[in-house]
Amino acid sequence: MVKATRLPRNETGIETAIGILKQRFGERLNTSQALREQHGHTTTWIETQAPDAVIFARDTAEVSDIVKICADQKVPVIAYGTGTSLEGHVNAPAGGICIDLTEMNKVLAVHASDLDCVIQPGVTREALNVHLRDQGLFFPIDPGANASLGGMAATRASGTNAVRYGTMKDNVIALEAVMADGTVIRTAQRAKKSSAGYDLTRLLVGSEGTLGIITEITLRLQGIPEAIRAARCSFPTVDAACRAVMATIQYGIPVARIELLDEMCVKAANAYSGLTLPETPLLLVEFHGSEAGVAEQSETFGSIADDFGGSGFAATSTTEERNKLWKARHDMYWACLQLRPGAKGIATDVCVPISRLAECVSAAQAKASELGLLAPIVGHVGDGNFHCSMLIDMDIPEEVAMAETYIGWLNDLAISMDGTCTGEHGVGQGKRPYLTRELGPATRYMAAIKQALDPDNILNPGKILPD
Amino acid sequence: MVKATRLPRNETGIETAIGILKQRFGERLNTSQALREQHGHTTTWIETQAPDAVIFARDTAEVSDIVKICADQKVPVIAYGTGTSLEGHVNAPAGGICIDLTEMNKVLAVHASDLDCVIQPGVTREALNVHLRDQGLFFPIDPGANASLGGMAATRASGTNAVRYGTMKDNVIALEAVMADGTVIRTAQRAKKSSAGYDLTRLLVGSEGTLGIITEITLRLQGIPEAIRAARCSFPTVDAACRAVMATIQYGIPVARIELLDEMCVKAANAYSGLTLPETPLLLVEFHGSEAGVAEQSETFGSIADDFGGSGFAATSTTEERNKLWKARHDMYWACLQLRPGAKGIATDVCVPISRLAECVSAAQAKASELGLLAPIVGHVGDGNFHCSMLIDMDIPEEVAMAETYIGWLNDLAISMDGTCTGEHGVGQGKRPYLTRELGPATRYMAAIKQALDPDNILNPGKILPD
Repeated sequence: MVKATRLPRNETGIETAIGILKQRFGERLNTSQALREQHGHTTTWIETQAPDAVIFARDTAEVSDIVKICADQKVPVIAYGTGTSLEGHVNAPAGGICIDLTEMNKVLAVHASDLDCVIQPGVTREALNVHLRDQGLFFPIDPGANASLGGMAATRASGTNAVRYGTMKDNVIALEAVMADGTVIRTAQRAKKSSAGYDLTRLLVGSEGTLGIITEITLRLQGIPEAIRAARCSFPTVDAACRAVMATIQYGIPVARIELLDEMCVKAANAYSGLTLPETPLLLVEFHGSEAGVAEQSETFGSIADDFGGSGFAATSTTEERNKLWKARHDMYWACLQLRPGAKGIATDVCVPISRLAECVSAAQAKASELGLLAPIVGHVGDGNFHCSMLIDMDIPEEVAMAETYIGWLNDLAISMDGTCTGEHGVGQGKRPYLTRELGPATRYMAAIKQALDPDNILNPGKILPD
Repeated sequence: MVKATRLPRNETGIETAIGILKQRFGERLNTSQALREQHGHTTTWIETQAPDAVIFARDTAEVSDIVKICADQKVPVIAYGTGTSLEGHVNAPAGGICIDLTEMNKVLAVHASDLDCVIQPGVTREALNVHLRDQGLFFPIDPGANASLGGMAATRASGTNAVRYGTMKDNVIALEAVMADGTVIRTAQRAKKSSAGYDLTRLLVGSEGTLGIITEITLRLQGIPEAIRAARCSFPTVDAACRAVMATIQYGIPVARIELLDEMCVKAANAYSGLTLPETPLLLVEFHGSEAGVAEQSETFGSIADDFGGSGFAATSTTEERNKLWKARHDMYWACLQLRPGAKGIATDVCVPISRLAECVSAAQAKASELGLLAPIVGHVGDGNFHCSMLIDMDIPEEVAMAETYIGWLNDLAISMDGTCTGEHGVGQGKRPYLTRELGPATRYMAAIKQALDPDNILNPGKILPD
């Protein structure tokens, strides 16, 4: 594991806060080692930094009470959803109290006529979509993991559908949040648009629990499309695949997803998911619309793919075939692990202007090969966003160091291409050094906002901003 | 005119700043009465509060210099685009220096492959679209006026196309801005999405020049659709028209615009634009897509309209006919003025969840009629957003008072329906009292952000936040 920075602990404050919380919550204040460690657990290679106690909050008033008690004692408070973030977002480098929000999992209202719903933060995206299905509605953002929507809002998640439906920033209408002093605010009303003052909704989306704890979310919904069609197409090179993506986007085909798997991923998918795809770069595409619309989109995409040397173009509109393709895509992480049994998959993510995508992906492949790293690449390429999953033997320090070198190199490359060091994984602890490289003086104003809204730095300290 | 709050003037600071700026900018520091009044001019009924001097800045470095000089003296700085905002946004209630950005009007780069461009803030939306046309691209946001894109970003503008393409918040990728201490920051790179820290882009969009002065904008662009079709349809009642809109949106027809004109507006349009429309509520719709796509959309809309008692449905794909319809829509303000020659048109704007739209519009009509006000209504109804333009004789104090009453009543009604007191006109001076009614404690955190980023309150003071 890679060491994470530790911050000074306020021992007296933590002890006092735990005493008061014990009185208020009794047995529900949990200090067992196993539960604490699980709540500091991260799915990445950063070491676990466990909180001192965990409380499963049941409503906004409880969250507010906990924050007030911690604020009085200047004790850290870390909001926790499903723990699927990748950059150490839920670690507790100064200890403190973890508020687990998974029991706040009610869908409070679905307004079908307005295409929105109001939910508690612990609702997961899959649970929400099950709830909505009968009404012909769905929530499109899909980061892969069955994450909680509170966590997805807090980390500005996106994923495969973002090319068509945007990221969490585009799909949150309003938030209720508990601020650092325990005050409960609403950032906006339920109107679809507003120009009423500073956009606190968008400020909290992506703030990773450092400015406020999200306790209720109003989300935009979509009608389930009349027709869905998926297609796949193989390409001779990553460059050819990326050019086909650019042409598709420029042509205005409203693809719902357009995903790149590099040759190593295709090989892994064949082995893991029992597919027989040609082991060259592959695009997986999905079209949403009317029957006539998806047929037209699919046909146009087919002819664009053709122009760029695509082969084996196959479109399908049966749910089974489509699910099989997307299941293979969703299982990529597990499939890639099989390329090197026993290794850990270390994911990193960058996003560049789409015109630089082919160059960036090709350079990333070449660099990995030069360093002798196995680093298969999958990408939400319609947005210029891709992930490398390095397969690392964590017991070999040289490999770990090499992975660190590679991540640093890749982030700097993306930044040099006018891209970002984090397209959708957030900053957490892992990407903090790169944020300043990317945005320079802007980070000072981020720090000023943090200082203004959380003067004692109790909300998820040690994340996003440089020390 | 309605009185605007005056703020204390820092006479010594203003005098000193003007002296220093005179040395730096010579004749370019303009203190003529006419120019100053023009720069305090607002298109609404709020009295003009002129700045003490106006400088037409030529580049970011000049903006930074002016802000630094003013910051040293604690003197207000007001950014100015085309002055088409409606709520007193550019007034100078404490005097100070107006920076006119209209000479910073270069398109710095068009990245056709990335569907984005980088522009200076003084570029107007029409100028940008003329610049882009040859490349088959366009920028969709259209607030009516030929506003500067800096102003549109600063006020989170939207308009007729927002139902399909979103508002300025959805179409700004990154900003360069001069902060209150004169520091120049970039809020993001050019990647299409990012989860790199706090969303300063969205915080500045809609901040009305109170947190920073926008000096460069990276905008998302769209390909000009292969086909555009417009349609109109008359309805027996506002309620029927609104229900047709709801059904259209729920059905997932990706309308590019869907506009309501109430019966009074249709009457005005007939008279002003030489049309012969039935004088009942009217929907104007536009579809963007492929030839087959727009035909399908238009047909589906036609049958939905039918279900809700629509009549006289007429679709057109010739540019002339389409332009004639939209010109009538764009000329609504002038057409309405002809309903009562000599009157001033006082525009106010609210936005509610679309399920409450029919009720809200009908109540607004009934209340106007009860008060004896002529208040025709046009609406970007796909978003639940509509405008009342009261026709007021400004020489009759009772009428002015009645209009104030009406605006207060309408804003409160929208808020009570989970809507907003300002869908797209911003807050400026005019909507300040309603912001607190709408968002309560959230406004305290807006104030904390303002205090953190502009501790001396020099950037466009007296706007958005309550005193």
